[in-house]
Amino acid sequence: MIIDKLIDNCRKKSFICVGLDFNEDYLPTYIAKKDISIDEKIFEFNKKIIDDTKDLVGCYKLQIACYEAYGIEGLIAYKNTVKYLKQNDLITIGDVKRGDILSTANMYAKAHFENDFEVDFMTINPYMGEDSVSPYYEYIKNKQKGIFVLLKTSNESSKDFQDIKIDEELLYEKVGKKIDSWSKDFIGESNYSSVGAVLGLTNEDDFKKLKKLKNTFFLVPGYGAQGGGLKQLKEFYSNGLLGVVNSSRGIIKAHKNICEDENFSKESRKAVLKMKEDLDKCLS
Amino acid sequence: MIIDKLIDNCRKKSFICVGLDFNEDYLPTYIAKKDISIDEKIFEFNKKIIDDTKDLVGCYKLQIACYEAYGIEGLIAYKNTVKYLKQNDLITIGDVKRGDILSTANMYAKAHFENDFEVDFMTINPYMGEDSVSPYYEYIKNKQKGIFVLLKTSNESSKDFQDIKIDEELLYEKVGKKIDSWSKDFIGESNYSSVGAVLGLTNEDDFKKLKKLKNTFFLVPGYGAQGGGLKQLKEFYSNGLLGVVNSSRGIIKAHKNICEDENFSKESRKAVLKMKEDLDKCLS
Repeated sequence: MIIDKLIDNCRKKSFICVGLDFNEDYLPTYIAKKDISIDEKIFEFNKKIIDDTKDLVGCYKLQIACYEAYGIEGLIAYKNTVKYLKQNDLITIGDVKRGDILSTANMYAKAHFENDFEVDFMTINPYMGEDSVSPYYEYIKNKQKGIFVLLKTSNESSKDFQDIKIDEELLYEKVGKKIDSWSKDFIGESNYSSVGAVLGLTNEDDFKKLKKLKNTFFLVPGYGAQGGGLKQLKEFYSNGLLGVVNSSRGIIKAHKNICEDENFSKESRKAVLKMKEDLDKCLS
Repeated sequence: MIIDKLIDNCRKKSFICVGLDFNEDYLPTYIAKKDISIDEKIFEFNKKIIDDTKDLVGCYKLQIACYEAYGIEGLIAYKNTVKYLKQNDLITIGDVKRGDILSTANMYAKAHFENDFEVDFMTINPYMGEDSVSPYYEYIKNKQKGIFVLLKTSNESSKDFQDIKIDEELLYEKVGKKIDSWSKDFIGESNYSSVGAVLGLTNEDDFKKLKKLKNTFFLVPGYGAQGGGLKQLKEFYSNGLLGVVNSSRGIIKAHKNICEDENFSKESRKAVLKMKEDLDKCLS
């Protein structure tokens, strides 16, 4: 099961996920000025950050929107980055948040678990229910793939629907129970399932409600730029939850106003080490 | 407002949306056998269908999964198809079902309302709430763009969450009310809003519950291959709802086992005319 490999990686290196959410403004001057195409610039930027952090982090996550925004060229950079991560035997999450009817979900599985955009994990939106999730089961079972299903997200408006009260619980708790039932067939040796869930670090009060999901490994966005910090991390772990914590801007633009030459990615490395200190405080 | 243009188009031609959901199995033999790249095959296939149906239909919808499954080449075909539709002044819906935090939604707007993949409407998933929708408002207001937000979908498992009972209503009714409130600033001369909603034709009983959404124009999947037919259409219109009805497989693979040469798209045209008869029965 891919989840065992991910958790093993996290235990050896750290429970940090580096979010490679590219933005042109983040390019150090020496790459920005080069006379090469945008896809080459993006790939060079990503590669430098990967090379300088790969011994320290559990996995990488690519927000595909940041690449789609640059059209075909952006997606060529996405393709080359996930390929490079694979060549280096690093675990990659495609943050694509797909959710669609069965026949369409089959096409998304082809797109993101095979061919050009192949990653180890995809993020999935649950609004359309189980038949928008089940087409991935075959890949999880037989092809060492996994998914993270949106449960409680890190944005302010997550409350619009996810916090709706139904009887004595909130909608996201119901979603959590469904994810738990979907995940049962894919539990690895680590006792966690390759069907995981996305849980924002920004919603401190929610951790208690989700501690009953014993086999669920979380992908946790919201650290750093989005407002989550040491306090929320401690709360997360003290409830017995386990997950990999994503940071994007905090790591990949750490060099801005500090270093604009080939050494820029050393600043990403420093940011990872700093984040690792926070995590170590919670896990020790 | 783009919604006025769409409704005007539908009134002049028909309330039919042709779903260009490509699949290699649909290629007529004469294209399949050509010694050209897959992106050229896809584009030739789509172009023929567009040319033979464009005087009859209100708009086109592309399910992006069907293109992503072919990687970069598939997305080149997607790009060329939406460009061709634009050149012909035809209205295009990018069925991408995106839903993400504000900064990411901004990138999706760049991706699908500008640059390579520019379409007139995008489909949006509401699970993350209003701040995953609001980044599109600026494009709706100032750049003649629109969105269709998932409300009640056409798949069997839509009941998993969308049909959860909360007080005296179902979750999707609550989503409907939110969509209604989001749509208020974008109502055109037609009295409909450029913020529309997706409503599956398969859930006949749901139409009554949504008749209160007076300014909501619907994108209606589920006709044909997914089980919706004349009976459901009549129910939809008799509740005073208005929307454009999508058919994909029923139109774009109509030639299979009938015609495999250059005349294949004449069968798509016949399928559209047949569907138009159904719609005329409901609207007259």
